[in-house]
Amino acid sequence: MQRKIYRSLVGVDEVLPIIESYRPLVPLGVVELPVSEAVGRVLAENVFSPLNYPPYTRALVDGYAVRSDDLVGVYEDRPRKLRLVGKVSTGETRLVTIGRGECVEVSTGAVVPYPADAVVPVEYTHQEGGEVTFYRSVARGENVDAAGSDVAEGEVVAWKGTQLTPTLAATLAALGVRTVKVYRPVRLGIVPTGNELRQPGEPLEYGQVYDSNSTMVYAYAKLAGAEPKVYPRARDELGEVEEVLHRALDENDVVATIGGTSAGPEDLVYRALSRLDPGIILHGVREKPGRPLAVALHGEKIVFSLPGFPMSCLLTVNLYLLPVILRLQGVSPQQLPRRRAVIATPLRGEAGIRVFVPVILAERGGRQAAFPLPGHSGRVSLMVLVDGFAVIPENLEYAPEGSELEVVLNPFQRAYRVNIIGSHDPLLQSIVASIPEAGEVRVVNVGSLAGLQAVKSGVADIAGTHLLDPETGEYNVPYVKRLGIRDAVLVKGYKREQGFVYRKEVGPVSSFAEVIEGGYRFVNRNPGSGTRVLVDHLLEEEARGKGVDAAELKERLKGYSFEVKTHEAVAYLVSRGVADVGVAVRYVAERYGLGFTYLASEEYDLLVRKESLEKSAVKRIIEALRELSRRGDAGLKGYIVGPETGSIIEL
Amino acid sequence: MQRKIYRSLVGVDEVLPIIESYRPLVPLGVVELPVSEAVGRVLAENVFSPLNYPPYTRALVDGYAVRSDDLVGVYEDRPRKLRLVGKVSTGETRLVTIGRGECVEVSTGAVVPYPADAVVPVEYTHQEGGEVTFYRSVARGENVDAAGSDVAEGEVVAWKGTQLTPTLAATLAALGVRTVKVYRPVRLGIVPTGNELRQPGEPLEYGQVYDSNSTMVYAYAKLAGAEPKVYPRARDELGEVEEVLHRALDENDVVATIGGTSAGPEDLVYRALSRLDPGIILHGVREKPGRPLAVALHGEKIVFSLPGFPMSCLLTVNLYLLPVILRLQGVSPQQLPRRRAVIATPLRGEAGIRVFVPVILAERGGRQAAFPLPGHSGRVSLMVLVDGFAVIPENLEYAPEGSELEVVLNPFQRAYRVNIIGSHDPLLQSIVASIPEAGEVRVVNVGSLAGLQAVKSGVADIAGTHLLDPETGEYNVPYVKRLGIRDAVLVKGYKREQGFVYRKEVGPVSSFAEVIEGGYRFVNRNPGSGTRVLVDHLLEEEARGKGVDAAELKERLKGYSFEVKTHEAVAYLVSRGVADVGVAVRYVAERYGLGFTYLASEEYDLLVRKESLEKSAVKRIIEALRELSRRGDAGLKGYIVGPETGSIIEL
Repeated sequence: MQRKIYRSLVGVDEVLPIIESYRPLVPLGVVELPVSEAVGRVLAENVFSPLNYPPYTRALVDGYAVRSDDLVGVYEDRPRKLRLVGKVSTGETRLVTIGRGECVEVSTGAVVPYPADAVVPVEYTHQEGGEVTFYRSVARGENVDAAGSDVAEGEVVAWKGTQLTPTLAATLAALGVRTVKVYRPVRLGIVPTGNELRQPGEPLEYGQVYDSNSTMVYAYAKLAGAEPKVYPRARDELGEVEEVLHRALDENDVVATIGGTSAGPEDLVYRALSRLDPGIILHGVREKPGRPLAVALHGEKIVFSLPGFPMSCLLTVNLYLLPVILRLQGVSPQQLPRRRAVIATPLRGEAGIRVFVPVILAERGGRQAAFPLPGHSGRVSLMVLVDGFAVIPENLEYAPEGSELEVVLNPFQRAYRVNIIGSHDPLLQSIVASIPEAGEVRVVNVGSLAGLQAVKSGVADIAGTHLLDPETGEYNVPYVKRLGIRDAVLVKGYKREQGFVYRKEVGPVSSFAEVIEGGYRFVNRNPGSGTRVLVDHLLEEEARGKGVDAAELKERLKGYSFEVKTHEAVAYLVSRGVADVGVAVRYVAERYGLGFTYLASEEYDLLVRKESLEKSAVKRIIEALRELSRRGDAGLKGYIVGPETGSIIEL
Repeated sequence: MQRKIYRSLVGVDEVLPIIESYRPLVPLGVVELPVSEAVGRVLAENVFSPLNYPPYTRALVDGYAVRSDDLVGVYEDRPRKLRLVGKVSTGETRLVTIGRGECVEVSTGAVVPYPADAVVPVEYTHQEGGEVTFYRSVARGENVDAAGSDVAEGEVVAWKGTQLTPTLAATLAALGVRTVKVYRPVRLGIVPTGNELRQPGEPLEYGQVYDSNSTMVYAYAKLAGAEPKVYPRARDELGEVEEVLHRALDENDVVATIGGTSAGPEDLVYRALSRLDPGIILHGVREKPGRPLAVALHGEKIVFSLPGFPMSCLLTVNLYLLPVILRLQGVSPQQLPRRRAVIATPLRGEAGIRVFVPVILAERGGRQAAFPLPGHSGRVSLMVLVDGFAVIPENLEYAPEGSELEVVLNPFQRAYRVNIIGSHDPLLQSIVASIPEAGEVRVVNVGSLAGLQAVKSGVADIAGTHLLDPETGEYNVPYVKRLGIRDAVLVKGYKREQGFVYRKEVGPVSSFAEVIEGGYRFVNRNPGSGTRVLVDHLLEEEARGKGVDAAELKERLKGYSFEVKTHEAVAYLVSRGVADVGVAVRYVAERYGLGFTYLASEEYDLLVRKESLEKSAVKRIIEALRELSRRGDAGLKGYIVGPETGSIIEL
């Protein structure tokens, strides 16, 4: 038996063939299900039609069944009358016949009387008394759906290996098929490992994290039609790893352990897998991230040892685990959906390694552009944005900006046509939700400054921004100029009332002096947010007024360095008593039942890429702003719209 | 209350707004689910992070935690030693500190000791005794993931209205979120109506059909995340319709009646809906098919009255019912997925009507081409092929071949890159299943001649064909020439042994003379199939030999006009005793345990569009044929491969 393959790393495309060289990836078994419950599953045998379809010769229109040769030569100006000898409604099973010179009224779907061979639509006829006048002739077979003309009894109507769609299910039902045999779902055992793991709901000590990969693997497996089950996490102790592993092997077809594969041969999971029979068949793939993947066999059962870093785990699930699950369920070996995209920044390859770079996709100049996600693979907040992975092939050292790469798409991720990246705003959110294209729009809330940068780099179509330039007192425009953003226009938004928000029992707060002197716990906003600029501006004014140093005030303000990224978070933390006071828009104060003291109106505008002005969702958003302007009312407390709302300012 | 709208037909785009003018399409309610079970559903409230993430400052690599200023100025040729004072493994919660000149060994994910501010990867160090030598300096923060740097406690991590994906579920789990509040599924009651309907499993009288639309609506609703329930069909009797309708209204949020809407105001469903309160709000849409759609309200509940013809039902489900269900579940109003495609035949519009033409999609010359499906909308066998509907706008009288139209895609339909249309063959089927691109290939079995025509029209990339020209004794090529097919090559396939197949107790059958004289019931193949040509050819030879007229022999052959479309069907009907003898390939005789008498070898070849030779699935299929040729063995009984197998013949 080949046992030594895993001593060296294997290529990405070798993983599945190596597994197959030990164990063909063929369906595991068959279950019989009612047709409508089998949708999504794969047929385990050919389905033969138990009847001819249509099961009787029927009329395709409302009209009169005739013998076509009775109406030869009939035209509008040369009509002919036939004797009406009866009527057949849909669902009637009585057998009716007609003779020469006769006709029978039929509804759509009714039995065509023998030996009528055509139906004249009612609009070409006139019925009076016991006679019908016909104003046109009719061809043999016209408007008649002959018994068995669509499907013959005994015909194969669905082939083994076909995945059942809603329309195929309907076809089978039409033919009277009640149940079908399909391949059974794969049972997947998920075994998280690592001393640091806790389950959501358990308390967390410093040094521990909640297990998130199990949830991800579970969700993907479920969407792929498998039956996943998460086992309690195994601590880093060989006996415990083996105990859970063998329980999972007993109860499942495939097991995915998570974590603990990067530490090499002394690794516990690795040791546990080595003791299986035949054991480890590959360990290490020439890819990044996801290199530490190991695969082992135990009899017919397959164990995937997935890396624990979320991004690596996500990638290996998509590249290897899901394809194996699908094939064991009889789904044809389909490659992951891919598309080509132009990369927005240069990317570096690694010799002999296939590098997968997580990207956000956006439409630019009619083409797909891929924007690499910033930050390291441990960041959970970015994972939701991964539209796919740009692939840098093994032989490519460097891919310059603008080159086209293949992107492996993240399955079950929604595709978006418009990205709005910037500062969170409830009114913008409700405008987006109201347009017909809402489903094509992704809103990512990262703050004003990051939004402007996203427009500059091209990943964002729109940035919502409310940045005050303290020098000029002007909003937004100075920042756009300072960042050197071209190819964008400013769409004027609205004013938002900002002020102190505080729990009502803390009492009205109207200045930072009061906050500092009252010893209140403040919650600040992140640098780069418009609100943070306002806070710093107010503190500096306060300092100037008092003749002290602003830095000193900031030092004395409790919680100045305790930062959150949204208005919502400020209000939430204040309402929960984690902090006493913060600065936020009036809207959230209302929502959380907090006190509000007006400080300033800030201008919330949209920076829009020029080319994005052509997208219909963007047009609708601007139109919605203009509609608010016409009405003169934003419909939400704390917002002020004006005549400028919705106007476009060239920069 | 606006009640009269339905007196005139409404436009396609008015249907949802009219419903919304009576009843906003907002979520129906909220349920709390474990995160991993909520995937696919929409969040009913913002989710705030209950903790900072990462929840502790951790190492991003295996290495040594240091104070970065202890290693200032260190290079490979100017190393520095620090005292090793401990080791922290991942998952340890013990708090360790370090002093000046000290370092601590840490694993990836371990707590970084206080106040270390960087981690040097193990590959730049050398440990010996109680000391570690460092060969490079390190920047403050390098390889350290600071507590709270990704997500701050109290931050909104998932916004109300977001659909939960696997990656978002994982993010929430990482933050310790166990359950989320999501919008509840819509309960959909499905009420089939019509005297002609029977449920699969019930016996069928002449004039009755099995209900298939309920299965289709059920399957789509299920895939959209709703909770559908099919009610027993209501016969055409007002009391019965009303009884089932009201039961369905009591138990569901939305009801879909099917059938019985085309007959105008005297229609029973219409009458039942008119008696609801406020009753019918629209009846009739300026579209085709699907015109008879009606929508009624009963309090807050919505009733869709869907047309009963399968294609019309499919279209109205996708255009109206699914969007309403999704919006009631909080999914942003997303338009049906659409794409533009070039139409392969001219299409005619209708003044003032939006016409939807069911199409198959295929890639041609790097663009999407749409091929209208033949036949009328009552054909159930075509429904599975509907990739979407080409849209002819109200103002377009005529769309010439080659013009670009919008295609509304059939949701949950798989996208294919290669269409193989033609004669069914088990060896071809198994070759397709074996290639990595199998999932991109759709195989439609319609017979040789229809396959050739599909290549000619462009919808097929490949046609499997075995047509004998009786004049020349040559296979396939004469037919291709006669049809005037250009831009295609013939890829030589293999020979298949054909012969009489019969139940063993019927005894060996070796000529049509025996079949006729024995009074056996024959099962024939469809005109256009290669086997039918062989059957007719043999009957004519037999007639010549006997000096009688071939027509007479055909008359005397029992079941000459009883036709099925596949080898499988012939063998199945013979094995089930519906017929006694047929002509088919040896493979199916083996499969069904039937007797086989060799008649002739026929040549099964592939006609391939020249441009399709560039597609990787097509390349692989040809390569697989060549591999069989090299091996000299097809691996399936009844097949003969030769040196010509896999060779390309220009025509």
